Amino acid sequence: MAVKFLDKLIGSGKKVKSEIEEYQELDLSEFEEGFKDEPTSMFIRVAELTGLEILPELKKQIYEGNVVFIDVSPAKHDKLLFDRAIKDLKQVVNDVHGDIALIKEDQVIVTPRSIRIDRQKLK
Amino acid sequence: MAVKFLDKLIGSGKKVKSEIEEYQELDLSEFEEGFKDEPTSMFIRVAELTGLEILPELKKQIYEGNVVFIDVSPAKHDKLLFDRAIKDLKQVVNDVHGDIALIKEDQVIVTPRSIRIDRQKLK
Repeated sequence: MAVKFLDKLIGSGKKVKSEIEEYQELDLSEFEEGFKDEPTSMFIRVAELTGLEILPELKKQIYEGNVVFIDVSPAKHDKLLFDRAIKDLKQVVNDVHGDIALIKEDQVIVTPRSIRIDRQKLK
Repeated sequence: MAVKFLDKLIGSGKKVKSEIEEYQELDLSEFEEGFKDEPTSMFIRVAELTGLEILPELKKQIYEGNVVFIDVSPAKHDKLLFDRAIKDLKQVVNDVHGDIALIKEDQVIVTPRSIRIDRQKLK
């Protein structure tokens, strides 16, 4: 029992922990407050498609010239929500001459004018 | 047997198919060739962290002023690869005064100068 516990503590358990730490470190990276004095020309905004009520904010961001990166997995089995959201976003993309693409099956990237999404994966 | 086949054809099977079609339609959307005449100021490039050999291309893209969107899930259990890649990318971000953040546990976004990643999810 004690061995098992120790094993958990310094064995595989440790590896998992260190991986999580790595991720947290990156998530809250020093860059968060990094180059504050740099002028910011554009933001990358992150969102989740949980319902129709988020659409106005998504559209506003694109009209303001920001890239929006939307996790659509919550809407994957809600065809009405998904279709409506995509229709709305395509309309905005048409308006601003931006771009829209589905990446990795459930991630939608929407861009403002003059920013293109490269459909070919880098190699 | 015939009923089962029909069921598959017009029952739940149909729903799955229509969802897939939806996704494909988006993926190969009309925007792919959409606003060809628009000047492109920046690309969003998509990549997967499958090995160290992709790093030079990722770095090149960031130095060229593009946003790179990297799926790091293939490196999630390869701590050496993950650490080395993040270290290299952070160095580039430092060089160009860009930004780097982990989104959704396995998606890393790296941006060039003056483009910030908003850590707060849109609401």
